[in-house]
Amino acid sequence: MSKVMVSIIMGSDSDLPIMRQAADYLESQEIAFELEIVSAHRTPEKMLRFSKAAHSRGIKVIIAGAGGAAHLPGMVASLSPLPVIGVPIKSSNSIDGWDSVLSILQMPNGVPVATVALNAAKNAGILAHQILATSNESLQNKMIAYKEGLATNVLDRDKKVQEIGYKNYIK
Amino acid sequence: MSKVMVSIIMGSDSDLPIMRQAADYLESQEIAFELEIVSAHRTPEKMLRFSKAAHSRGIKVIIAGAGGAAHLPGMVASLSPLPVIGVPIKSSNSIDGWDSVLSILQMPNGVPVATVALNAAKNAGILAHQILATSNESLQNKMIAYKEGLATNVLDRDKKVQEIGYKNYIK
Amino acid sequence: MSKVMVSIIMGSDSDLPIMRQAADYLESQEIAFELEIVSAHRTPEKMLRFSKAAHSRGIKVIIAGAGGAAHLPGMVASLSPLPVIGVPIKSSNSIDGWDSVLSILQMPNGVPVATVALNAAKNAGILAHQILATSNESLQNKMIAYKEGLATNVLDRDKKVQEIGYKNYIK
Amino acid sequence: MSKVMVSIIMGSDSDLPIMRQAADYLESQEIAFELEIVSAHRTPEKMLRFSKAAHSRGIKVIIAGAGGAAHLPGMVASLSPLPVIGVPIKSSNSIDGWDSVLSILQMPNGVPVATVALNAAKNAGILAHQILATSNESLQNKMIAYKEGLATNVLDRDKKVQEIGYKNYIK
Amino acid sequence: MSKVMVSIIMGSDSDLPIMRQAADYLESQEIAFELEIVSAHRTPEKMLRFSKAAHSRGIKVIIAGAGGAAHLPGMVASLSPLPVIGVPIKSSNSIDGWDSVLSILQMPNGVPVATVALNAAKNAGILAHQILATSNESLQNKMIAYKEGLATNVLDRDKKVQEIGYKNYIK
Amino acid sequence: MSKVMVSIIMGSDSDLPIMRQAADYLESQEIAFELEIVSAHRTPEKMLRFSKAAHSRGIKVIIAGAGGAAHLPGMVASLSPLPVIGVPIKSSNSIDGWDSVLSILQMPNGVPVATVALNAAKNAGILAHQILATSNESLQNKMIAYKEGLATNVLDRDKKVQEIGYKNYIK
Amino acid sequence: MSKVMVSIIMGSDSDLPIMRQAADYLESQEIAFELEIVSAHRTPEKMLRFSKAAHSRGIKVIIAGAGGAAHLPGMVASLSPLPVIGVPIKSSNSIDGWDSVLSILQMPNGVPVATVALNAAKNAGILAHQILATSNESLQNKMIAYKEGLATNVLDRDKKVQEIGYKNYIK
Amino acid sequence: MSKVMVSIIMGSDSDLPIMRQAADYLESQEIAFELEIVSAHRTPEKMLRFSKAAHSRGIKVIIAGAGGAAHLPGMVASLSPLPVIGVPIKSSNSIDGWDSVLSILQMPNGVPVATVALNAAKNAGILAHQILATSNESLQNKMIAYKEGLATNVLDRDKKVQEIGYKNYIK
Repeated sequence: MSKVMVSIIMGSDSDLPIMRQAADYLESQEIAFELEIVSAHRTPEKMLRFSKAAHSRGIKVIIAGAGGAAHLPGMVASLSPLPVIGVPIKSSNSIDGWDSVLSILQMPNGVPVATVALNAAKNAGILAHQILATSNESLQNKMIAYKEGLATNVLDRDKKVQEIGYKNYIK
Repeated sequence: MSKVMVSIIMGSDSDLPIMRQAADYLESQEIAFELEIVSAHRTPEKMLRFSKAAHSRGIKVIIAGAGGAAHLPGMVASLSPLPVIGVPIKSSNSIDGWDSVLSILQMPNGVPVATVALNAAKNAGILAHQILATSNESLQNKMIAYKEGLATNVLDRDKKVQEIGYKNYIK
Repeated sequence: MSKVMVSIIMGSDSDLPIMRQAADYLESQEIAFELEIVSAHRTPEKMLRFSKAAHSRGIKVIIAGAGGAAHLPGMVASLSPLPVIGVPIKSSNSIDGWDSVLSILQMPNGVPVATVALNAAKNAGILAHQILATSNESLQNKMIAYKEGLATNVLDRDKKVQEIGYKNYIK
Repeated sequence: MSKVMVSIIMGSDSDLPIMRQAADYLESQEIAFELEIVSAHRTPEKMLRFSKAAHSRGIKVIIAGAGGAAHLPGMVASLSPLPVIGVPIKSSNSIDGWDSVLSILQMPNGVPVATVALNAAKNAGILAHQILATSNESLQNKMIAYKEGLATNVLDRDKKVQEIGYKNYIK
Repeated sequence: MSKVMVSIIMGSDSDLPIMRQAADYLESQEIAFELEIVSAHRTPEKMLRFSKAAHSRGIKVIIAGAGGAAHLPGMVASLSPLPVIGVPIKSSNSIDGWDSVLSILQMPNGVPVATVALNAAKNAGILAHQILATSNESLQNKMIAYKEGLATNVLDRDKKVQEIGYKNYIK
Repeated sequence: MSKVMVSIIMGSDSDLPIMRQAADYLESQEIAFELEIVSAHRTPEKMLRFSKAAHSRGIKVIIAGAGGAAHLPGMVASLSPLPVIGVPIKSSNSIDGWDSVLSILQMPNGVPVATVALNAAKNAGILAHQILATSNESLQNKMIAYKEGLATNVLDRDKKVQEIGYKNYIK
Repeated sequence: MSKVMVSIIMGSDSDLPIMRQAADYLESQEIAFELEIVSAHRTPEKMLRFSKAAHSRGIKVIIAGAGGAAHLPGMVASLSPLPVIGVPIKSSNSIDGWDSVLSILQMPNGVPVATVALNAAKNAGILAHQILATSNESLQNKMIAYKEGLATNVLDRDKKVQEIGYKNYIK
Repeated sequence: MSKVMVSIIMGSDSDLPIMRQAADYLESQEIAFELEIVSAHRTPEKMLRFSKAAHSRGIKVIIAGAGGAAHLPGMVASLSPLPVIGVPIKSSNSIDGWDSVLSILQMPNGVPVATVALNAAKNAGILAHQILATSNESLQNKMIAYKEGLATNVLDRDKKVQEIGYKNYIK
């Protein structure tokens, strides 16, 4: 899929080390994406333009990450008809991450944000993949294969623990 | 859309008064759905069969609601390639809802659950609509119309406040 | 002061029973205000227009109340140069009020919101009064008188407790 | 007791440094155990097979550790008639451990998990010992001796504090 | 089993409406039990005598419930070699139940308490059953039957939802 | 003791239904006390005069109750050499009592407040009794008798449970 | 503005590394300020004198920072008619910052504190600027320019991300 | 005062680096004390003997520190007529200190513990001093002097900030 279908945005370049995990996952699945810095609080008008236009540009899913009083995912969700995946980020001076989790999760009726775990940008990428796969059989097969890969990886590690014993494994 | 594309499941019939809001929303948008009680803890094998088969039956999105140590959304997500929307429910003896929120939200890498706000089953229905709309223009137009309806509703209420004054409005 | 200097906005008409306390206080001090329903999530474009124009209309202070993932105060603060006072409201399905408190308080560097206590719309009115009083001696005298009134009220109650005893007072 | 009576499982090999404390304790008491990596979310079908078969293989107690949205202990408890001891693990990106504690503790009526403190895998081993000791006098005597050892250890340390003074002791 | 093998204790008679659920469950399974009020803070010496003697009287499992700064389960666990199941109770003036949960759960290394969910005295009874079943095949069969009953109950309710529709079911 | 040795103060007359429990306890022990409304935030200067003079008037212990951002106990402690007992009160619009608990408990080095449980004004009275008893043998004997009374009361209730059975007792 | 209009106070010199951010911001905007250490708990009488006199000295806004049971902002607010901006500081031995946040935020009716985010002294400076700008057009123009600068900064960073790609940007 | 009047106890020698601050303070004020390790969970019988005998040995105040499910202060309070000061300690594997704070603070009616801030052993020492000073004028004078010393220290630091400027002071 060379056409860009996922847009990854974040409130600050300090979120990049977390948010790149969404980008890296999508790249690994050959799903084209764009990545932008769009701040709800510092570039509100860009955010408005971005949000209102995204579906017309062919974007299907938006992934938005933010920390603290994290308004970006919810505001984009209020301005776009597209599904918005929110990634709460534990920023410096966060109150243990509770602020970004609650600011993104607790949206009012009418304006959902599909929230993933704290700092779980990779899961946001996977969820975007799952959403696109609802209308694309090839992507769904990739998702089935990905999940099988998760299982194989755990089974292999367990196999090694059984072979060498847990004490050696920890070393 | 007469073909069932959304499956709404919940851990207990005591979740129905909340979870029906997802069903009612989908019905209002003429999106066909099924609704079942599937308990991760009391019917684990039914849950396994349900989860592994859903995508083969043509289901595109699963909405799963649960309270307390809410394992249903995450377990279904581990067994199905489909996007799973999780609804944390504040059950009796809940610790203020924190238990269901964290049990659903904090999934490990590889297995996302699209979590919505506490008791926000209606938003789960809306999110399912948005996901289906990524490949269905008619549904996307409905979503755009729905969001415009939200705005109109607020503007009408504000108009009335301006007309009669806030003191009369509260009465 | 007949010129409107304070704008009281809120995300939903369900916030009116709390937010009217700001209005009632300002009225009691003869400070002119306007009151509107402006939802960050349901009327984002009205919010943008409102926020960008407020200072040009002569508004000096904005009071914004919202519940849940409460984005209104922070978004208005990002769009207006004016001081914005945020009132966290404990809405239904709130997680004990933590969601609105943290969504309003934990704003990033550059975009402060002057947050008051949960449901403390009256204090928002008082704070607006204090801000206007920084350049208005008459208002400052009123504030000094108001604080003296607080003391007198407590002293009177204590006097009554001493006179009739705490057991009779509770009856 | 050379027959394996305790099964220690965990969701990820990253849990091993904590969970080995259960294994080390059981080894110190000469209680035979097995140790496996079984992920609720990545190997759900292995988990199902494991849980349904454990009691038929002669396992008497299952110790299950997991972090984040920790579903392993509860799911095993839903699938096995055996007592399941849950160890909440504070994983990276955990919200201070609250997620794993609440995901394991707050199980619904019908499906208990015997939860121990955050990261307290050693206590899980001790609890397994106590459960086995309910039908094994030799193990009960060992438990009585173990508890006496705890007392002796504290008394010895206090004795040293009294002898050399607290200031020297800290050095 | 007519011999008393489970002792149910609680810190106050105000805990009885919750703690009786453990007793009622055990009665339903024909497991003999005793039930006593033993307060860690108001009858500490009775608690000490009770705890030190319980295993000599043939008791196999102790269930202890308490609220607030709930010290009873942990103190009994420190004085007895038996497995102790702790039931956190949400008492009046509790801080949302957090106090009793943490006071019971967070025991130090060496002295575990098998903690169940807030107010989950029934689950404490079930866990006691499971512990006794580790050495009693008849009790294990009962436990297997009990879990099958849980599944049947959920399946029946779902069947009714399918038959009459969720809207009628809620009525 | 007819000489007033304990001063009970509170920030608002709305705290009286809780704070009277301290007064009632002291009355039951024939310990003379005074009771006043002194608000840190509304009568700061009265608070200062009160605090600086209390020890010169012969007061030995101060009990201070307050809710929300509860500054009264800590401020009195900063102004008086006397031991100050703080009672956190769960006021309306409190965030579950956490605000008053933390505002009273978390005092900096140099200025302790002896904090008791949420709403536990009775315990504040008992603690004042214990402090006075450190230099008054008659009061210490009363305290010993009081604690014996607590035990007797629990033992009597347990006796009744044993006599009539827990099911009848609950009725 | 060479006349000192803002007073920055803090409870301890250990708060200086945070609180200087308010000073540095005001300096960058050429708003004159004073900075003092005034402890509510260790210098209560200085705090009283300071608070009662500030407005007479021409101070327009007070910024007060404190950690733990942070009483300084609220007490100053109770003694002065001026708007008081509170900065919660996460001190050592803080319970994750919750203590200072709640001690400052949850003020009772009548005595607001304009609370900013945890450690957000810079935002306190900006808020003071906004308050002064309500009566000073030059300061308001500076505020408008400052907010434009925030946008430009984000846009520049995004531009660089687009130019060199996010992978190179992170390096 | 050469007669030992304060007993400092703690649950583990790992608490010594915190608890010594109580000892060091008392030493600085020439108040004689004893210091012992007494574990509620590992040496419950020593704890019982200690608690029941302390007042007969002439001890006037007990300071007890513990972490996690911190039962020592409350259990000693249940066994002794003396005032007990509780020091919550943030141990390893603590859930951010909440466990020890709530386990110590939330004592039931009848059995208060005078709780100080997290890790605030120094304040426990000061509070013990204040309690002893209620019947000892010399100790009260020392306390008055101590508080004056706190003020002087802050005033000196502020003086230095004014002299050299805050920027140089931070260096």
